[in-house]
Amino acid sequence: MTITFYDLCGRDSKRFSPYGWRTRMALAHKGLDYALELVKFTEKDKIGFSGQPLVPVIRDGDKVVHDSWAIAEHLEDTYPQRPSLFGSLEGRGMAKAINAFVNLTIQPLLAPLIVADVVAHVDGSDRDYFVSSREKRFGKALAEVQAGREEKVEGFRKALEPVRIVVKDQPFIGGASATYADYALFGTLQWARCTSGFGVVAAGDPIHAWFERVLDLHNGVGRSEPAAA
Amino acid sequence: MTITFYDLCGRDSKRFSPYGWRTRMALAHKGLDYALELVKFTEKDKIGFSGQPLVPVIRDGDKVVHDSWAIAEHLEDTYPQRPSLFGSLEGRGMAKAINAFVNLTIQPLLAPLIVADVVAHVDGSDRDYFVSSREKRFGKALAEVQAGREEKVEGFRKALEPVRIVVKDQPFIGGASATYADYALFGTLQWARCTSGFGVVAAGDPIHAWFERVLDLHNGVGRSEPAAA
Repeated sequence: MTITFYDLCGRDSKRFSPYGWRTRMALAHKGLDYALELVKFTEKDKIGFSGQPLVPVIRDGDKVVHDSWAIAEHLEDTYPQRPSLFGSLEGRGMAKAINAFVNLTIQPLLAPLIVADVVAHVDGSDRDYFVSSREKRFGKALAEVQAGREEKVEGFRKALEPVRIVVKDQPFIGGASATYADYALFGTLQWARCTSGFGVVAAGDPIHAWFERVLDLHNGVGRSEPAAA
Repeated sequence: MTITFYDLCGRDSKRFSPYGWRTRMALAHKGLDYALELVKFTEKDKIGFSGQPLVPVIRDGDKVVHDSWAIAEHLEDTYPQRPSLFGSLEGRGMAKAINAFVNLTIQPLLAPLIVADVVAHVDGSDRDYFVSSREKRFGKALAEVQAGREEKVEGFRKALEPVRIVVKDQPFIGGASATYADYALFGTLQWARCTSGFGVVAAGDPIHAWFERVLDLHNGVGRSEPAAA
């Protein structure tokens, strides 16, 4: 079987999608090779075959899967002999809850802290689309959204506490090795690392040390994408 | 080994502590017998041997363990041949994160919705202590804290979404059978069921159906405690 992975890209093929990073880490965790197809925000026709407009998408043989969580389940079910993303059936359900916690709590608290910085990393051809769609979402100019982030970052950091409680005492959420629960939060913080110089996590925070550990995994695939200045 | 379980009790030996319920369910999950010692709010001297003032506490042979999460880990490590609370090592870390999510997000959103109702279920000898300590915590009278709950309950329900996403498609967070992640949230909702007639979860909510399933587990131990009128 040949996997093709359709991931979002920005300027100079930069890859910063939090959901794309979940899939990228899941593929690396499973040790699966794939062909990569980069998709800009305004190139959604490239994934029209998936019947919906959002990356990541994978085509695995005859099967097309979209939505990063569905992709993780597909990879686990299709390649059960490869390292598990969840550890157990029990872990799969728990990882799904943690994945949703990141989507519903962490991602929305992070976006206003860095969204104006992201613009510089979006491809020139996508910039108008990106700015107008995000301004519409937030109901104001992106510079205004990001204003006061030095104060707002505290709420974001506090919201990370359920994960901090775990990784202050062990290397990964999953214990000695990483699971998809780790990749769910990693993707979100990697989005910030790749697009913004703003320190969303304090240097002494156990979350910071955990993030550095995830960056080192799978031959440093996370670290291979340069951090924003 | 003989286990003694020290659990909070209210009027007429009613047991409603969210953290006590986690331990009670964990003991039932492991199929462990124990001696029960009921502790009122103002009887903290009964657990003075534990070096701290909070129930639940268990004494297991020579070992004394307090804090419901630490008790769960102790039971898993001491009775590994009994049904697992976490499913795997990976699941243990994920359950810890979900446990913390419940403590830090769900419990604080629920407390203001029912705290005045709880008073009627506290033993008469504890009532002054309970009311004054909670009024101090909230900074106002408990009736005032609870005012407007018909609107505030929406925020509580929304915060349950990471668990709802899982249990709308499978019986328990852990899949086909319950794990400690289920018991963490169950304890909090059971606290509401036992102390308040206010409908904190809507009847058609998948969380409601999941809660009913957990009430049925282990010979209906959850259901054995009467619901508040």
